[in-house]
Parts: sequence; structure tokens; C-alpha cells
Amino acid sequence: MKSTAWFSSERGMEELKSRQSAVIRQIRSLSREAEARRAGGLFLCDGEKLLKEALRSDAEICQVLWKQQRAERYPAFEREYLLPEDLFDYVSPMKNSPGPLFTVRIPEIGPCGETKTALLLEEIQDPGNLGTILRTADAFNVDTVLLLEGCADLYAPKTVRATMGAIFRQQALQMSRQEAVRFCRERGMPVYAAALSDRAQDLRTLDLSRAAVAIGSEGHGLSRELKELCDGEVIIPMGGEAESLNAAVAAAIVMWEMCR
Amino acid sequence: MKSTAWFSSERGMEELKSRQSAVIRQIRSLSREAEARRAGGLFLCDGEKLLKEALRSDAEICQVLWKQQRAERYPAFEREYLLPEDLFDYVSPMKNSPGPLFTVRIPEIGPCGETKTALLLEEIQDPGNLGTILRTADAFNVDTVLLLEGCADLYAPKTVRATMGAIFRQQALQMSRQEAVRFCRERGMPVYAAALSDRAQDLRTLDLSRAAVAIGSEGHGLSRELKELCDGEVIIPMGGEAESLNAAVAAAIVMWEMCR
Repeated sequence: MKSTAWFSSERGMEELKSRQSAVIRQIRSLSREAEARRAGGLFLCDGEKLLKEALRSDAEICQVLWKQQRAERYPAFEREYLLPEDLFDYVSPMKNSPGPLFTVRIPEIGPCGETKTALLLEEIQDPGNLGTILRTADAFNVDTVLLLEGCADLYAPKTVRATMGAIFRQQALQMSRQEAVRFCRERGMPVYAAALSDRAQDLRTLDLSRAAVAIGSEGHGLSRELKELCDGEVIIPMGGEAESLNAAVAAAIVMWEMCR
Repeated sequence: MKSTAWFSSERGMEELKSRQSAVIRQIRSLSREAEARRAGGLFLCDGEKLLKEALRSDAEICQVLWKQQRAERYPAFEREYLLPEDLFDYVSPMKNSPGPLFTVRIPEIGPCGETKTALLLEEIQDPGNLGTILRTADAFNVDTVLLLEGCADLYAPKTVRATMGAIFRQQALQMSRQEAVRFCRERGMPVYAAALSDRAQDLRTLDLSRAAVAIGSEGHGLSRELKELCDGEVIIPMGGEAESLNAAVAAAIVMWEMCR
């Protein structure tokens, strides 16, 4: 623990010992409550992979909590804390995480730049699927992801983890159905509803290089309200007896076709 | 509980009460141990969605465990059990499942029919990703999925659940790397290694309508051994700063291109 002692004395890294400390209580709230994340303007990230991505993307890192020992390969952060293992495990949203835990300022994002492609998500409730969709959007250069009613929280720890760093780069905006469709129309993008219907057009026959597609939940698809707002329906053709695709897979196929 | 009493007396549905009963101990083993599944030739499924899929696919259903009450909309099964809530929760691999739990005979599968397309999976350790890949293979009519070294167990409860029923339909075989490549060559399929390399050919430039593609783990890709056995490398082009795709997403894009 030499490095820790050095670090602690030279730069004032605080050692936390109590579950009642203000920092621990704050991190627990950020881990569990979407409302606490909104109110505090912060979200919680876990692990060195995300820490590297945050640094690479110039995200505003606010607090860093280390488990037992600081890793020396990182620059000094404004506020760093050292936690014993049991306290770290208590506060971490992930089981047996080696850490670190850190908080990042939620960026104030408005629509920026030219937007040629957009994905509208309705009722994507699984945070792993939502995070994977953001990761895929980032990989395929989809300009914006619009989160409509009923989606998992963009800044929930499980969502953030599944983005594998795309959370720091990918534009994602929360809107109502009406706002989202207006957003797309104003930018010259037709909005297609992904649906399993006879009227739907085969995905491969459409030019999606300047378009928006709405994806709904696996269980019951898009709401009638959103379908009625859309300009048409699109289907990912499937064979066999399968009834549907995983939502993150369906979104991936759509985004691949947008950039193909 | 009228229907239950009727059912119980008429057809001999047994009520289980003890954690020590042989059935409960067997189900716990099937839930937790791949070896118990192999030895018993059975795997465990959860929920009405999978039960309907099993019936639709003529899978051999061996035991059905109901939580508190039997749903009357199903035919009689050979062995049915009624469990009180706490015992059901004890034995269920899934938290707060409404049930039922049921066991299905692992089919004796050999390579059958013509095989024009195959997906080779190496070190896909996440059962959710593995199950999603099977589900997508079924949806896109990929003939066979070959599970090589280091994959999650095909019959683990989390894998089975993520297949959403494809486990009863999709051909999936376990093989070594060498066997898998030989399997593909014998059927006239070139084997491409999905890789992030400069030498790799753009996925969109290849004819994959009669081909096999190998997908590796997100963390460190395919083994050198498997890459050296392959006929070439293929890349899913990505933009931006993303380093990789989720394994189930990468597999989905590859399978989509096979059937596109």
C-alpha cells in the first residue's frame, strides 16, 4: 500500500470507512435512483474499461472511488477516495467488481450537427439491450438515438456498462413520441415503424441512408399511437418459426442497413 | 384451487413439500450443473412462453412443476408436480418466476440435412449472448451453429431462456475447432474468421450464401489456432471510435448478410 500512502499524503485522497459517510450515501443513491442522477446531474460508472473511455472522450469525471488500492496509471482526479473491500462491495452496483467506481457529469445535450439517421426507441425496458443499442449506434455512426416513453434509464449502471463507453460519445435524447417524430420531420427524415405486418416494406428495399426507424418492445411491438405518427412500416424478413428478434438485434440490423 | 384438487385426484399430480424430495434435488442439479444435464439427458426450462414453444416443436417434455396452481390450458403431462410458492422459488433458477418449470429431453442431434451456412462460436461465455445468437440463427435460417471451445453451456437455464424457443428448433452442435473446420470443408463452405484486421475482407464484398463464419469473444477475439485454420478473415466495418460490437450483435450482422 506504499503508493496509496504516498498518494494519500501528497494529494489528499480521503479514506472512507463508514456506510454513513455523505459520499457513500450519495453514490448509493446514484446507483439506485434515476431521480438522484437527474437531480445531481451525475451518473455512476464502473471499471477501468469505462474509466479509460471516459478519459479518452474528455468526459467530466467528478469522483473516483478505489477498492483497497489506487491504480497508478491514471492522472490525478479532483476527488478520489480509498475504500476497504467490504465498503466498496456495499456501494458498488456490480457484484465482485474490482473497481474503480466513478461519477461523471451528465452532459447537457441538445440536438447538434447534421442529423441524417435516427433510431427511435419505445419501451426498451432492458438496460442491457438499451446499452447495447447505444454501443451499436456509435459503431455504425447513427447520428442520434431518441428515447421515447417506457425506456430503461439511459444512465442506469447496467445501461452504462453495456454501452462499453459509447455513453460518452453517442448522442441520445429523451423525447415524447410527438416530439421525436417532429424532430425527424424537421430534418427531412421519414420515420418508419419496425413492425411484423403484411403492409410493412422489406427493410432491404428501402433507402435508409437518410431516415429514422422506430423499434419497440419485443413483447408487444410499437404503440398504436407511434405507428400512426409514422410515415410507413418496415419489416426485417425472418424465416422459420421465429416470432421476433431480440430488440438489440433488431436495432442492429436496422442500423447496419442505414450505414450499409 | 378446485382445478388442482380435481387434477390431483384424477391424474395423480403429486404435491411436493420438501426440499429433500428426489425431484427437487434433481431439478436443482439440472439448474446448476452442466454435468447433471449431460448425465441425465435433460435440461430445464422456465415459463409459459417456453412451454408453448416446446409443445409447438414436439419437444419431449418430461416433468412439469407448477407454482401453487396448474394452468388449465395445457394438455396433461406425464409427470406433473404442484409446489408451494416458497419451495418453487427455492428450486427456480429465476427470481420471482411465475413458472412453470419443466424438463425437456436433450435431443440426440447429429448433422442432418443439407448445410449451406454455419456459424462457429468460440469463447462466447455469456449465456444470454449465446441464447440470443441461437434465436437469431433460427430467425435467419442459418443451418447450423457450431459451439467450439470455451462457450457457455447450450442447456444452461440462462441460455435456454434467451433463445425464446429456438433451443427446440435450431441445430447446434458441439465440436472442437478442428472438427468444426473439417465439418464446413466437407460441405463445401469456406470458413471465414471475423476479425479486426487490415487483411480482413469487408463483409459486404463476400458471398456468404454458402459459407461459415467464426465469431470469438468480445475481449480478445478468435484464438490464433482457429484463425490459422480458417480460409480468410472478414470484418464488419465500423466507424467512429468504437472498438468492437457486442458478440450477439456481430453474429446477427454476419447471419443477416448470409441470408440477405
